Formats: sequence, structure tokens, C-alpha cells
Amino acid sequence: MLPTIEWRDGAVVMVDQRKLPGQEVYVHARTYEEVAEAIETMVIRGAPAIGVAAAMGVALGADKLADDLDASVAREAYEKIHARLHRTRPTAVNLFWALKRMRAVFEESIAGGRGEVRRRLIAEAIAIEREDIEQCRSIGRHGCGLIPKGATVLTHCNAGALATAGYGTALGVIRAAHEADPSVTVFADETRPFLQGARLTAWELMKDSIPVTLITDNMAGSMMNRGRINCVVVGADRIAANGDTANKIGTYSVAVLARENGIPFYVAAPASTFDLSLSSGAEIPIEERASAEVTEVQGVKVAPDGVAVCNPAFDVTPARYVTAFITDRGVARPPFAESLLAIR
Amino acid sequence: MLPTIEWRDGAVVMVDQRKLPGQEVYVHARTYEEVAEAIETMVIRGAPAIGVAAAMGVALGADKLADDLDASVAREAYEKIHARLHRTRPTAVNLFWALKRMRAVFEESIAGGRGEVRRRLIAEAIAIEREDIEQCRSIGRHGCGLIPKGATVLTHCNAGALATAGYGTALGVIRAAHEADPSVTVFADETRPFLQGARLTAWELMKDSIPVTLITDNMAGSMMNRGRINCVVVGADRIAANGDTANKIGTYSVAVLARENGIPFYVAAPASTFDLSLSSGAEIPIEERASAEVTEVQGVKVAPDGVAVCNPAFDVTPARYVTAFITDRGVARPPFAESLLAIR
Repeated sequence: MLPTIEWRDGAVVMVDQRKLPGQEVYVHARTYEEVAEAIETMVIRGAPAIGVAAAMGVALGADKLADDLDASVAREAYEKIHARLHRTRPTAVNLFWALKRMRAVFEESIAGGRGEVRRRLIAEAIAIEREDIEQCRSIGRHGCGLIPKGATVLTHCNAGALATAGYGTALGVIRAAHEADPSVTVFADETRPFLQGARLTAWELMKDSIPVTLITDNMAGSMMNRGRINCVVVGADRIAANGDTANKIGTYSVAVLARENGIPFYVAAPASTFDLSLSSGAEIPIEERASAEVTEVQGVKVAPDGVAVCNPAFDVTPARYVTAFITDRGVARPPFAESLLAIR
Repeated sequence: MLPTIEWRDGAVVMVDQRKLPGQEVYVHARTYEEVAEAIETMVIRGAPAIGVAAAMGVALGADKLADDLDASVAREAYEKIHARLHRTRPTAVNLFWALKRMRAVFEESIAGGRGEVRRRLIAEAIAIEREDIEQCRSIGRHGCGLIPKGATVLTHCNAGALATAGYGTALGVIRAAHEADPSVTVFADETRPFLQGARLTAWELMKDSIPVTLITDNMAGSMMNRGRINCVVVGADRIAANGDTANKIGTYSVAVLARENGIPFYVAAPASTFDLSLSSGAEIPIEERASAEVTEVQGVKVAPDGVAVCNPAFDVTPARYVTAFITDRGVARPPFAESLLAIR
């Protein structure tokens, strides 16, 4: 498996996820602004991967601070870097979690001078990356026992190696389950408008020889109703204290359809995706993206010129539809107000 | 509004719906085989429109029967035409309804010789076309009172002028409602894989200056949950005696999501779409179409080579999710076993 993102001598190297699976092109970001643009334009996406990218972006930015800055000027320069990365995308909380963690390291190390700040921030960004892979593997270990023998698992969007530093959250559970039981198979929603399911999830799973069947988003309900799906596992972009879950647009529909058909619906996410400062999903900001994502597919027009469009990138699934959260610290079941506190 | 299909001196002229809205290209079918291919390849689609096309295809075929055929040879030749059109698509019952009606006319007229057969079949095909427009207008009249003042109506696929001889079934209701109350607006699901919503419904409604907002299929549930949708109106390809409804893939999901959110879900269809010979939707054959419809969008690849695909063109919505059927003969409410009999 290709690394999603790598720190390499003053550059952040990312596979361009907009071009997969047709082309494997690598973007070398050499400034924090370039990392910010890569996040905004979805060169890199997926909540945990965005967190890693933001941390590496901070490290790149801090690397270029002048040697002779005094603490208050350095802090001002740092805040500019922080603010630029902070405003890239609003929904995935891992971004803000990673930025907060980096800022704490900056504050701890600033007295040591630029060299110390630089070393510590690079080390922290790489630590966030490494921990993320470990967390995904832990999510896999905790979740694989929830997947029935021979199950067909539906997943939405891409919560895979490409959405994380590696291995994946929802796909981490699927990878671990398939390792334990090779008869486990997958249905992947294509996930319009950005087609992360068709382009990324199908590609990742085929690379790992995990059997995957691609469907359009509107087929998922019918497949459930026809008994073709045994459980659902998805990732998350932000989870409130009550268990309400923001994830890729369409997740709410999948959750309602799973409930209607008596199919377990699991959300797989590391602790950094939980935002216990929010009491419910109503407080999660939902990003609205450009209408061209809906009216064009890979640059080809599929709708009349000038048509009005809604394009929320995420929706909120109320906690009552979630069977359990699969985290790196264990499985949380209802009542979530208690079980999520215990996990965090 | 352009006519969807027209009989014009020995040719069936159809706007090529695969190329809309980018190009307005007309296909001139001069043989019944060409009409059959136009149905199979979705030059023309939509249950009522397919019925009209099949009837006109029969008329084209019969027009070319040799003058000197005796009745049994003519019948054999006729059956070949019938069989070719019969196997074009399996789900929409209007196709079989129209073919049955044409065969009855053939049998009635065969004693009168080829000229009589020809005149009668052409007249019948044109009658089916004209009646279809009238039925759509009647559906509109019966349905418009069900749409609340200022409502935003969600529709799926295209059950519009392009799916019928004109005016539309679901869009007939919307057109009539908008005529009575210009504050009525529409959300259109794009309707993957063939994008009838993005390409056809959005285009039709914009031509008629009815405000329409395009969304991807997986946004519909979230829009309902956020209170943006007041009711749902869709068309149908075949309705069983108990009210189970086959319609474009994704309709089942929309129906479940509407129920979950307390939103009325209406199915608009002419009497010819009801197949009371089937006791339930389990008996409706569901067409599986080519995987390239899912892996490519307008010829552009959007998935890895060789990925497995499911591509059922339709799903079955159990009758319990249907608030009412809006037909040319009135509105049918539960219990449908009784109300549909009364309509038919």
C-alpha cells in the first residue's frame, strides 16, 4: 500500500487523491500554504489524514521561521500558519485536534529557540502520523470481532488507508475482519459527488485482494432490503458527546436504511475524531462545497448550465441509529453519553 | 417543450435522451428493429414513453409486411415484430400493455388486408401517444391538490415529459401544482447511474421556469432530515395489485427516508402502469444493466478497471411506504388491494 502522506526532508509528499485510480501522481508541498491548498482541494482528504497533513503543514511553516525572531514575533508568525491551516475545512475535528496539539508543542519549545521549535514540531507531526497508523490497527483489532463470519459489509465513502496515515478506520475493521476470515466481502457505495468509494475504496480493497462490489449510492437501500448486506461500517469526521456523527454526505441515509432493515451500523474512528465539547450534532459545522462537484464528473458536464445546486459535504447521523462506535480504545455502545466519556 | 416521440411518415422520431442536455439530437427510426434498439439503449426511456415507442415500433414493422401475405403468414411475421419489441426491457409494464393492445388491433383488422392493418395500427399507436398526454394532464389535475402551498417537492429520476408522450406523471403533478401556486419548488435527485435527474428533470423544469435544485442521490435523506423537503412525488415502472411499486433504483431508499421523516410519499402513474396480475412486487422482474453505466460517467472512467459491479435499474418499494397513488382516474389511498381495483 502506498503511503497517503509522508514527511520527506522539508516537503510533505501526498498521493493526489483527485487523480486516483487513473493516475498515481505525487504532490510535493514545500510550504504550509501548499499544504493548506492540498487540504482545501482534496488532494488529501479523510478526517485523520487531514489531521496529519495539518500537523506536517505546521512543521513546514515553522521550519521557515527566521532564526532571530523573538518569542512574541515568532508566536505571531506561528499564529498566521495556524490560522491558514485552521480555515481549510470546517467539519473534520481531527484538523483542529492536530493543530491544537502542535500549538502546545510550539509553546513548550519556543524558549529553546528556532532549532528546538523546528525539531520538536517535525517530531510531533511524525508522531501524529505514526500514532494514527497504530490507532487504525487498534480499531481493526477491536472491530473485527463485530463482523459476522462470511459477512458482506457495506461501507460509504473512503475511510481507508487513504483517509488516514495508513490501514484505515472503517477499512481497518474490514481489513482485520478479512484477515481473520477471508470469506468477508465488501459492498462500496460510489459516494457522489467526489466518488471516494468508486475511486479510492474500490482501488484500495482490490490492491489488498479483498473482494469488493461497487454500487451507486442509491442502490445501498435496495441491497439491504434484498438481504445482500450483513452490516455497515463507516468512518466519521466529528462525533459529538451524545454520539451524533458527522460523516460524508449520505451516511445518514445509509444509517436509516440499515435500521429499517435490522442491520447493525458501526462507526469506526480514533479518539481524535470525538469532540466531546459539543453536546449534539446540531453544533457541528457542515461544509458546503462548490456546485461544480455536482454538475461535473471529472470535468465532464452532467447537468444543464446554471442549475441551482446544494452540495453539503457531510451530514449528521443521530446517535440513535448507531449500533456502536469502534475506537482505538475499545467499542462504545449505548448509552453513548456514558460510554464515550469512558473511551475519551 | 420538445415532443419526446413523434410518428412522422414512416419514421419514429425521438430526441436522443442519452445526449441531453448537452445536445438535442433526433433519432429517426425507420424499422421496428431500430425502435427496439432505441428502447434498449435508452435513446427513449420512462415507462409510458416506452409503451408509446413500442406501439409505434409495431406500426413501423407492420407497415412493411408484404401485400400478399395470407393471414397465418402475416400473423407469423407480426409475432416476430412483437417478440423483438417485447424483449427490449423487462420491468416497465407499459411496454407489454402497449404490445398487447396493438396485437388486439392487429387481430381485429387482419381480415381487412394489409392496408387495413397498416391504417389501424398507425392510428392505434398515435392514439396511445395522445391518450398518454391526456392521462398525464389528468394525473396532474388529481395530484396538484396534494401538494401543500409553497411546498418543496423532491422527485427522483425523470418521470416528466421525456418519460411520457408529454407533460409527465410525477412532473405532471409538479407542473400542475406549480401552475396553481408558483411558490412550489423542486429538489431533483441526480439519479445515478444514468443521471436522468441531473440531465433530464433539471433540464425540463428549467425550460418551464419551475425552480429546481439539483442534489446527488445521497443528499436526499439529509435534506429531508433538515426540513428542506415537504413531500415526494415519483413515477413508476410497474405497480402490483398490493401497491408494491417498481421504479428507478433508489426509489425504495427515498420512500424509507420519507417515512422516517414523516414526509408524504406519492407515486404518480397512469392506469397502464398497474399490473394487477401480480399479487406483489416480488413477482416484478428487475432489469440488471451493464456495469459500464456505473464505472463510467459519459464515457469517463470513475472506477478501477475490472471492479465488480451490481447495476439493478429498478427497485421495489413495498406498498406500506406509499402514502397514495396519483392516477389519471383519481387518487388511491390504502388499503391498496381495494383502492387499486377500483381505479383499474
